[in-house]
Amino acid sequence: MVESIVEKIVKGDVRTAARLIRDIDNGVQGTREILKALYRYTGKAYVIGITGAPGVGKSTVVDQMVRGLRKNNKTVGVLAIDPTSPLSGGAILGDRIRMQRHSLDDGVFIRSLATRGQFGGLTQSTRSAIDVLDAMGKDYIIVETVGVGQDEIDIARSAHTTVIVVVPGMGDHIQVIKAGIFEVGDIFLVNKSDRPDAAKTLSDLRAMIDITSRRFKQAGWEPPVLLAEAINNKGIVELLDEIEKHRRSRKALPRESIVRHKKAIARMELMDMIKSRLVQETLSRIADSLEFKKCLDCIVDGTKDPYSACDELLSTKLNFREYESSE
Amino acid sequence: MVESIVEKIVKGDVRTAARLIRDIDNGVQGTREILKALYRYTGKAYVIGITGAPGVGKSTVVDQMVRGLRKNNKTVGVLAIDPTSPLSGGAILGDRIRMQRHSLDDGVFIRSLATRGQFGGLTQSTRSAIDVLDAMGKDYIIVETVGVGQDEIDIARSAHTTVIVVVPGMGDHIQVIKAGIFEVGDIFLVNKSDRPDAAKTLSDLRAMIDITSRRFKQAGWEPPVLLAEAINNKGIVELLDEIEKHRRSRKALPRESIVRHKKAIARMELMDMIKSRLVQETLSRIADSLEFKKCLDCIVDGTKDPYSACDELLSTKLNFREYESSE
Repeated sequence: MVESIVEKIVKGDVRTAARLIRDIDNGVQGTREILKALYRYTGKAYVIGITGAPGVGKSTVVDQMVRGLRKNNKTVGVLAIDPTSPLSGGAILGDRIRMQRHSLDDGVFIRSLATRGQFGGLTQSTRSAIDVLDAMGKDYIIVETVGVGQDEIDIARSAHTTVIVVVPGMGDHIQVIKAGIFEVGDIFLVNKSDRPDAAKTLSDLRAMIDITSRRFKQAGWEPPVLLAEAINNKGIVELLDEIEKHRRSRKALPRESIVRHKKAIARMELMDMIKSRLVQETLSRIADSLEFKKCLDCIVDGTKDPYSACDELLSTKLNFREYESSE
Repeated sequence: MVESIVEKIVKGDVRTAARLIRDIDNGVQGTREILKALYRYTGKAYVIGITGAPGVGKSTVVDQMVRGLRKNNKTVGVLAIDPTSPLSGGAILGDRIRMQRHSLDDGVFIRSLATRGQFGGLTQSTRSAIDVLDAMGKDYIIVETVGVGQDEIDIARSAHTTVIVVVPGMGDHIQVIKAGIFEVGDIFLVNKSDRPDAAKTLSDLRAMIDITSRRFKQAGWEPPVLLAEAINNKGIVELLDEIEKHRRSRKALPRESIVRHKKAIARMELMDMIKSRLVQETLSRIADSLEFKKCLDCIVDGTKDPYSACDELLSTKLNFREYESSE
């Protein structure tokens, strides 16, 4: 059963892939076994992260990028990460409709992930969905995120090239809520550049980039700041060119740096996966226990403080093997 | 040592409290023992959450609230949660300077928490800092958050009254990035209400509130939508009045509902605390192990997939006691 699903996905079967991604998003049991078997078919796709606040036109940028890549006969997978807000529902729906332009093109596969990410599940489902698209044989995978919250920074961090989209005049402090997002930007795009203040936004960004440390990215790459009007398809060819340049600059690094970078990313991803499983599985085991219920009653009637309750539950319910093997 | 710190804090010693909060924020070892001992002095303060996107004027609202509460001779603690963005650094700094108006008033204690919240630590440090201010004997504790990310929703959820601040014409989708924030709003405040579109924002909000489920709050309370110009101290008296109304409506609930609500909050807080400790402690133990390093090498050279590596590490390193006592 696992094998036949894997086979179908590797052959590019859209329905099987769509079902698997939906199951991953919903946390359906059994998807891990499929992902394990699928993993050996991954590693070929180039992953591009597109990140920016709501309203900056990310979806239009992605839409035009897809057109550009398709013109060059590249296959593309798109993952749109929606921490769905009821207020923005309309806009997102509109975006999705716009994306349907590509719905008859079987070189394009577009999916939204809606995971609320209660236990950091968003990062995990996104990475797994990337694996699925990768195994399907897509040349490029574009991951579109809103760029707020640690989850989304983590997602951006594991893309090969991360593009941060901003617009002029929205108030800088609104656009880049999390400082961390700056550190992961390889390319900055000022969209809607026909608006006033575009030049100011451009120079602000350049100044920002200079003072921000970029811990996770390679040396020798100065993040360029580009102007675009995605709605009129202006600046998109240049964006794709810069992405290719960044890709080449990655490849040109000494083997040692490539391995080191690969290892840093693998480490982060493995840590995230362990964290997510720890929380999902261990936490629910603890919360289902009688001890937990007792502790809760004691906290409510004031006979126990939550700090001690937490200590107790962790020491009763969790047990570590000896670390004899840890050197 | 623990006892003398506790004693000082309960007496309201500002320097000791400030140091403890800073240590909590920095994750310094040993703070848990102090928090345990301090806990029995907590539970008297009324906690107000103020949440809204950057730029809506939260700090000005808080500043005026502090003035209003001080006029009524109430003591106030303020916790400003800063997921510090380099771009907004200036604004935040400005806010802090503005808040210094109260710096000579020893009935007011203002502190910022900057925890980046790498492992969901933000929620945890904020709750602990609330405990410290509570033990100090503050009548009111105002917790100011940016309102993005699950962390901040969780913080808002454990406040007694949560106020969501918006401004007209900023684009609704920017202001309320996370849907969840709506569910936790007890009072909505349209600040900068002299701006055009204030009426539209007001009616949009009313419509939003009607369709949003409010899982975590009590029945019988219809969240009001208020207008304010905090900078001119307009609408703040009305806001404080509504907060008192909400407080009374909470108290008027049947004892059963109060206990149920208290238990739901205690449950959420205990789960968060366990989660945070699990991740902080267990994850670092796993990551420091030789097995982890071996797995990482295998992933990088392609001989193992991360899904299997994760399974292995969790089963080698973690061991559960039998659940004989879990009914």
